[in-house]
Amino acid sequence: MRFARVGSIGSEVPVVLPSNGSDEAFDLRPLTPDINGAFLADNGLLRSVQALEAGTLAPIKLSGQRLGSPIAQPQSIYAIGLNYRDHAAETGMDLPTEPLVFHKSPNSISGPNDDILFPPGTEKGDWEVELGVVIGRRAVHLRDVQAAESVIAGYLTLNDVSERTLQFDRGGQWTKGKSYPTWNPAGPYLVTPEGIPNINSVSLTLRVNGETMQHGTTADMVFDPASIVCYLSQFLRLEPGDLINTGTPAGVGLGMLPPRFLHDGDVIDVEVGQLGRQRSRVCIPAAGARPLLRGAETAPMQGLGS
Amino acid sequence: MRFARVGSIGSEVPVVLPSNGSDEAFDLRPLTPDINGAFLADNGLLRSVQALEAGTLAPIKLSGQRLGSPIAQPQSIYAIGLNYRDHAAETGMDLPTEPLVFHKSPNSISGPNDDILFPPGTEKGDWEVELGVVIGRRAVHLRDVQAAESVIAGYLTLNDVSERTLQFDRGGQWTKGKSYPTWNPAGPYLVTPEGIPNINSVSLTLRVNGETMQHGTTADMVFDPASIVCYLSQFLRLEPGDLINTGTPAGVGLGMLPPRFLHDGDVIDVEVGQLGRQRSRVCIPAAGARPLLRGAETAPMQGLGS
Repeated sequence: MRFARVGSIGSEVPVVLPSNGSDEAFDLRPLTPDINGAFLADNGLLRSVQALEAGTLAPIKLSGQRLGSPIAQPQSIYAIGLNYRDHAAETGMDLPTEPLVFHKSPNSISGPNDDILFPPGTEKGDWEVELGVVIGRRAVHLRDVQAAESVIAGYLTLNDVSERTLQFDRGGQWTKGKSYPTWNPAGPYLVTPEGIPNINSVSLTLRVNGETMQHGTTADMVFDPASIVCYLSQFLRLEPGDLINTGTPAGVGLGMLPPRFLHDGDVIDVEVGQLGRQRSRVCIPAAGARPLLRGAETAPMQGLGS
Repeated sequence: MRFARVGSIGSEVPVVLPSNGSDEAFDLRPLTPDINGAFLADNGLLRSVQALEAGTLAPIKLSGQRLGSPIAQPQSIYAIGLNYRDHAAETGMDLPTEPLVFHKSPNSISGPNDDILFPPGTEKGDWEVELGVVIGRRAVHLRDVQAAESVIAGYLTLNDVSERTLQFDRGGQWTKGKSYPTWNPAGPYLVTPEGIPNINSVSLTLRVNGETMQHGTTADMVFDPASIVCYLSQFLRLEPGDLINTGTPAGVGLGMLPPRFLHDGDVIDVEVGQLGRQRSRVCIPAAGARPLLRGAETAPMQGLGS
């Protein structure tokens, strides 16, 4: 069973795709306004199957429409570093003895084919194909890996976009180089666990302008998805809809000799097993140019007086 | 002007307190269901003043009621490390040349007097009194400190509760030692900027069982609040309702010789200028005992079949 969200940014419609490999999709709005934590926690995936079988969902056309991230913006995006043996080797760092955990800002998530935006003058933009894990139940202090498996709602394709100057050369923690909006393209599909024969043997491939940069397998993970979920739950509370980036195999730009980084106009293709493909364009304004992202700060808050 | 949320966990009622130092409060529910990002971004603070002046808000009794965090759970909690000269010195680390940034999980936030819960057997629980900054407008690439000031909705008292084994001794990034639910007691009040004569000269005090552990001033900050907001906005997008922990002065348990950490039953008193006081009880179950936090994993998701 696959789920997706289609439509313009901020107005995505939730849909379900029967697992037959076709692009036939059905509108989930009779069941839920979005594929979010509340939907997942309320057995939304099962209810979707039942509604499909009952024939109560209307078909919806996907072709020509933008695909959003297949899940709404999560409460948290947790990410695991150095979780593939070959990637740890290329970075020159020791293999972790327990998962290395960091956060990405939740508003870094974007659609699978959306442009990847960088601040003006970015020099060390980098790519990381990853398997994403979506949490379906609130979970803390999970007792074992089997309990962890029972709170996983599904999996998706991810590109854990990173900027290495901000991540490593600007003082402290990795947050700075991981959090810009559009730096976590997700999807196109949320695929439920029964749709994946063996989550510990899934291929991951990433190409830049057609050249293969990463080609790995989840069999090379140091910590598998259920072990990561069980581990995280010992010191934080996972919420329905939370997303976990489970790490990247070898072949990131930083690991090359000499290092290679992204340029304005590059095209990135990402594929994780049968979870679906992404194609994104890289946008890097020149140093000093106007940023592509704007906030609401041009209309400052009205003062409260004294 | 002060804002608060009163009532049981998950059912807090938003209130406004005229800035006269009394505990007279007025129910904000005619204006908003909560003190959240949508309310702040829609000039909710100003509308509250107008409603107060128009006399359209009903008085509400605070005494005997639990106080929640004065803001709803944020999208993100960003935190600044080593931001006081005396604290950087006690940790033996160099003074940062630009802000050191990390995340706390957004569900770490709790009420100012709620119990602070630790996983069973915690040995290095620690305290950090801090000034909290609440964002009122979506903001990215702010052009200067003045623009940053215009997106600050207000300030609050914080205790950036930490666990030093998880933070430093369990591999990589600080996330692990900062994110457990109840590890960011916030409030009691959100105080708007005009209610604070000089945000760069606010005292911060923390006591454990009556003994003063921290006593500092925001004048000792390396980076002041508006500079931090401006800085963060260059590589992530701040959202209305986001919370920033701006760092702690000297006197944390880890910095003492020998280090001192929290024990079950300890009482922590926290005070930041005129922003209001917290009193929390520390709860640490014995190693191997049942955790105080429970998830929903005892009712696993229903399977989807094959």
